Amino acid sequence: MIILVINCGSSSIKYQVLDMKNDDDYSLLAKGIVEKIGLADGSIAHTRTGYPKVIKKQFIEDHKVGMELVLNELVDSENGVLKSFEDIKAVGHRIVQGADFFSESALVNEDVIAKIDYCSDFAPLHNPANILGIRAMQKVLPSVPQVAVFDTAFHQTMPDYNYMYPLPSSYYKKYRVRKYGAHGTSHQYVAGKAAGIAGVDINNSKIITCHLGNGSSVTAVLNGKCYDTSMGFTPLAGMIMGTRCGSIDPNIVTYIMKKEHLSEDEMTAVMNRKSGFLGLTEVSSDVRELCEAVEKGDQRAKLGLKVLVQDVTKLIGSYAAEMNGVDLIAFTAGIAENNPWLLEQVCANLTFLGLKFDTKTNNEKGIDKVVTMPDSKVKVAIVSTNEELVIARDTMHLVFGK
Amino acid sequence: MIILVINCGSSSIKYQVLDMKNDDDYSLLAKGIVEKIGLADGSIAHTRTGYPKVIKKQFIEDHKVGMELVLNELVDSENGVLKSFEDIKAVGHRIVQGADFFSESALVNEDVIAKIDYCSDFAPLHNPANILGIRAMQKVLPSVPQVAVFDTAFHQTMPDYNYMYPLPSSYYKKYRVRKYGAHGTSHQYVAGKAAGIAGVDINNSKIITCHLGNGSSVTAVLNGKCYDTSMGFTPLAGMIMGTRCGSIDPNIVTYIMKKEHLSEDEMTAVMNRKSGFLGLTEVSSDVRELCEAVEKGDQRAKLGLKVLVQDVTKLIGSYAAEMNGVDLIAFTAGIAENNPWLLEQVCANLTFLGLKFDTKTNNEKGIDKVVTMPDSKVKVAIVSTNEELVIARDTMHLVFGK
Repeated sequence: MIILVINCGSSSIKYQVLDMKNDDDYSLLAKGIVEKIGLADGSIAHTRTGYPKVIKKQFIEDHKVGMELVLNELVDSENGVLKSFEDIKAVGHRIVQGADFFSESALVNEDVIAKIDYCSDFAPLHNPANILGIRAMQKVLPSVPQVAVFDTAFHQTMPDYNYMYPLPSSYYKKYRVRKYGAHGTSHQYVAGKAAGIAGVDINNSKIITCHLGNGSSVTAVLNGKCYDTSMGFTPLAGMIMGTRCGSIDPNIVTYIMKKEHLSEDEMTAVMNRKSGFLGLTEVSSDVRELCEAVEKGDQRAKLGLKVLVQDVTKLIGSYAAEMNGVDLIAFTAGIAENNPWLLEQVCANLTFLGLKFDTKTNNEKGIDKVVTMPDSKVKVAIVSTNEELVIARDTMHLVFGK
Repeated sequence: MIILVINCGSSSIKYQVLDMKNDDDYSLLAKGIVEKIGLADGSIAHTRTGYPKVIKKQFIEDHKVGMELVLNELVDSENGVLKSFEDIKAVGHRIVQGADFFSESALVNEDVIAKIDYCSDFAPLHNPANILGIRAMQKVLPSVPQVAVFDTAFHQTMPDYNYMYPLPSSYYKKYRVRKYGAHGTSHQYVAGKAAGIAGVDINNSKIITCHLGNGSSVTAVLNGKCYDTSMGFTPLAGMIMGTRCGSIDPNIVTYIMKKEHLSEDEMTAVMNRKSGFLGLTEVSSDVRELCEAVEKGDQRAKLGLKVLVQDVTKLIGSYAAEMNGVDLIAFTAGIAENNPWLLEQVCANLTFLGLKFDTKTNNEKGIDKVVTMPDSKVKVAIVSTNEELVIARDTMHLVFGK
């Protein structure tokens, strides 16, 4: 069963074509990205599995034209993987923000689209683009069922004492201001996958998942369900990120606005795009470049990486405490996968939990492995995430009931 | 040696008179409070130790007049405890914010006052009042040495990776925006006292102190020195408080300002005075009243108290992780001292640390006790704080070198 997975940004479309036999038996037929939609130098980069990447440059007027390009690549005589569009049985869309409307994935209809549109207020960069993707696909494949898979859905099992902010309750009633979290699809997948390779029963376990990438968040997964997460009302909250400050003393926000004469939008931009590693170190937003700078003795870069270690360590500690223990800590995404020193430094502070780190295995190449000793009381795993697979699975389940 | 300890608010003066023989041998001669300075219904409530409280009502023009009233009470023929003003050998002032100028207490001179004045920017409600108190005392007792004891000084040992925010570094350079913490005098005292009664060597230990009162903060004390603390640039950060929201997703600040058309000062007031228990529950800012409401089945009050338990639990967990363990958790201040259920609920989540709670001792009357079993791996103590004693000690040391 061919499922097309779509992840729309404001000027981009990422896609994957998966042939799903069941949840665990599947193959990736092709993937690619359409970039710079609406700009002069638009492009599509398409990779048929096992073949070289093919890049085509052209002006791409809007998301509908982008979707047509994607579909044309899929049936292309040379690089294509499908005989006709009719092979596509369903389309799954990644939706960033579903607020408390969606605790699971949903078959797309006008009501669902209206709710995604309502949630644009909490994810102004992402949700409008997600809707563009749905609308474009409705035009080019009108008879194919579409499914919305929400980054926030997995976090909807949080209890109120973990998602409510101690703010005037009118803000919750009027504006739905509460913790929603993000990266839910990744945390869900990674918790399951790590439990599998570590031999932990996910339905009877305390797992902490650390998604450390462009955005970073840490989630407490209690018996397979989200219990708490570090991102908040928006993906700004929590720990240090590339250009995001994470949670800070909220008095700083109003203090800096007054001192620097910044509007709300300007201050929001500072906290989201000029803070994090970039703001603190003045070196880079990229951990790879920070590591290179540290090699050259840069003290600011060193401080940035130390804050990273400290933030992850503190989040793990706080979630271990609220779950009264932790069986498994799972790491995923670029920063975690490419920096074995990070896992080593975080875990070095967790020996009080009975964690026995396996430095040798950790330093070996390869992802999807347990990096603690067999007698470690707390297990640690590093696994690659696969949000597209979760989207394809949910799409298959919702459309075909299996 | 008679030391007068002064804690000035914007319209109040709290005072204590201590006769100090040495750090641990002292007696409290009298204490009291001048209230509503500048208002029609001013008053002074004075208590000579062992005697009933005496309240006098009168208009009190300013802090100088208030200080004169205090001194007159101290030499009053009936309620007084001194023969003359000359018995006062030194005055110690509580100063809320010393930023990174002061890592310890300081003998007051014009340079010290100028720096306290500079720090008013970070503590606009407190530091100006503290200076009023110093100036008033300079006028009425010009020859007596005065000492400034800072709420922030104990926290100055934090490493940079715990006090720096991932914001543009220009904010640190231009405005000294960093974590300063608060309640330092209390955390310092409580760590020492709890270590004493729990038989822990403070110089070789991991202690977490929880000051839960009108304002609440939690501190990681590593080998007797502050390693991290939950309050931040200002005392708004950290956990839920009576009317303060603690640390929240900073995007909420700008989001609500736009939605509600609030100025920076108005939003600051919302977060500091209309949030916390009061905002979340709409019942009360006071834990006693929340407990009463819970007895009557109020679900909002129940949520407020659950958030309190969760926030304390998470802070303890995060500090245990960054110190790689914890030997002793010490609780102090009103909320902790009057709510044994709170300690019990927090500690119920910490059995994974090897903590064995002693419910019976915890429920008995009386403060200053260990409330864990003898074989508990982590000890827990509840102790009363005494910030005035720390101020008197520091004053004595600085003025008389002992």
